[in-house]
Amino acid sequence: MEKILRKRPTFADYLEGIKRHDKIITAQAITLVESQLPADIDLAEKIIEAILPLTGNSIRIGITGPPGVGKSTFIESFGEFLTHAGKKIAVLAIDPSSTLTKGSILGDKTRMENLSRNANAFIRPSATGNTLGGVTNATKETILLCEAAGFDVILIETVGVGQSEVAVRDMVDFFLLLVMAGAGDELQGIKKGIMEMADGIVVTKADGDNVKRAQHAKLDLQNALHLFNTPPSQWLPRVVTSSAITNLGIEDIWKMIEQYADVTKQNDFFSINRQQQDISWFHSSMQRMIKKEIVDGIASAEKIKELEEKIMAKEISASAACNLIVKMIKQRFAKI
Amino acid sequence: MEKILRKRPTFADYLEGIKRHDKIITAQAITLVESQLPADIDLAEKIIEAILPLTGNSIRIGITGPPGVGKSTFIESFGEFLTHAGKKIAVLAIDPSSTLTKGSILGDKTRMENLSRNANAFIRPSATGNTLGGVTNATKETILLCEAAGFDVILIETVGVGQSEVAVRDMVDFFLLLVMAGAGDELQGIKKGIMEMADGIVVTKADGDNVKRAQHAKLDLQNALHLFNTPPSQWLPRVVTSSAITNLGIEDIWKMIEQYADVTKQNDFFSINRQQQDISWFHSSMQRMIKKEIVDGIASAEKIKELEEKIMAKEISASAACNLIVKMIKQRFAKI
Repeated sequence: MEKILRKRPTFADYLEGIKRHDKIITAQAITLVESQLPADIDLAEKIIEAILPLTGNSIRIGITGPPGVGKSTFIESFGEFLTHAGKKIAVLAIDPSSTLTKGSILGDKTRMENLSRNANAFIRPSATGNTLGGVTNATKETILLCEAAGFDVILIETVGVGQSEVAVRDMVDFFLLLVMAGAGDELQGIKKGIMEMADGIVVTKADGDNVKRAQHAKLDLQNALHLFNTPPSQWLPRVVTSSAITNLGIEDIWKMIEQYADVTKQNDFFSINRQQQDISWFHSSMQRMIKKEIVDGIASAEKIKELEEKIMAKEISASAACNLIVKMIKQRFAKI
Repeated sequence: MEKILRKRPTFADYLEGIKRHDKIITAQAITLVESQLPADIDLAEKIIEAILPLTGNSIRIGITGPPGVGKSTFIESFGEFLTHAGKKIAVLAIDPSSTLTKGSILGDKTRMENLSRNANAFIRPSATGNTLGGVTNATKETILLCEAAGFDVILIETVGVGQSEVAVRDMVDFFLLLVMAGAGDELQGIKKGIMEMADGIVVTKADGDNVKRAQHAKLDLQNALHLFNTPPSQWLPRVVTSSAITNLGIEDIWKMIEQYADVTKQNDFFSINRQQQDISWFHSSMQRMIKKEIVDGIASAEKIKELEEKIMAKEISASAACNLIVKMIKQRFAKI
């Protein structure tokens, strides 16, 4: 069992491999954008810059739902349908726990057994990150790499820990929420705020004894959705019942997403939304990185902790504590 | 019409006046915390620090709703009810447009005519701020000053521009959403996400021809609220119909808020929530101020704009643009 040391690809290797839609090189490029090593970061940036003109020609779909709702099973059915329809699909699974379990790559491939053997599908769990519930800079760059590598549909799966949904919502075109009908006629496990982000809702497991319950849930959800204003996309979210066993709803879900793309491309929301997503990502990652690089560099975790305790003990107001840190930082600047 | 120049109060004057529950001194202290002058900022911080032990003994209620829903009329009725019940109330109106119109102080007092003449009520429009839809550091400090000045109930009114609701939600104990029944049986004008933040919903104008419609709306809203998980407060949001003409619901709304306080004080959510609000305010205002002081100091608005345009033209990725700014800032630090 000798380990074969592969030669590291060069910038040209990466570029040419991605353009040729080579899955192995694309996977290596993703590993590179996930790397924290300074040399890797520079090379990754050069690659992203070079492939940027090749990006944008996909539909980016966020998929979320509570544990047990059947996300992997749904993605397997949906992915099979899409590849049969001639699409090349990439599945990016955001799993904040993967840094702990280390087993998620194998896990995901096992979870989506058929899809992982499908030549037109590419499954990639995010290996990194505790920020934003597992969503990192790398996730955004990975989408770009997959687009440049010729994938038409990019599915981004999140596990439903709240923060990751918001972060994923801000990098996709269409956000799909999976729910299942509960024991009564209520829907269990929908986090506050998540439903409002959805462009489409799928009631899963609408088969066997569960069909009626799922249809009830669909009506409830439709009524709830009616209460809200028309969003800026002008798209009114829809509810579809679906079954991975009977394949009920799978085609309808894709039709819904295609219609969404039609509507929002016609009214320009599609491209405006992507531009706004990029701009707000720029600003939010700037704030995050500056906090990390500067505040954490000057004000130690202990100092912050100490101030937090003073705030809780009402010895200092939150604003005064903030001013104190800002003053410390400004003093460092003043010395230049 | 001579203008009388009042002597500026000293630190001791402020402190003694607030402790004596003097409305004029309290109003002057609020003006001080709203000031941007360095000398005022220092004095304001000293005052806030001194009064901190006197704060916390109020219930902080956020009130929002779409234009035309009858927020002022509701606050007038609700405020009259509360003062009759022996409460001292402060009304803080967040109006992001007030810097433009300059007329909102007069405007608010005219809007709430009876309340403004009530000795146990204090009406204060926020005069400042474009950040977070009119919500600033000053809003948080103003709440503290009002508490120290003996107000039992603090009502914070926002105008429904989205960002201000989230900011206000994060500084109150109870968040009340006002809606009205629309032309059909749908509710018009509820912004996505706002409903999910509400601890209570009031359907206004439930009088005359509108009673049936309001009751329908109440049922619709109750059904929609049932879909969501129990929030961390363990409090299940309720819907009340109300009329400022017949005073229908006014007492029920106060009872609901008292029950909320009972429940959340018993399960400790009340105090834990306030502590968490302070800590997250500390962190978010740190990020905001550092962005303002440091990024804007080094990376000019033009540089940011230039990068934004490059991002939109796909000449650079959002992450690379962010890295560029962070590098600029780190270089300044490296020179020390």
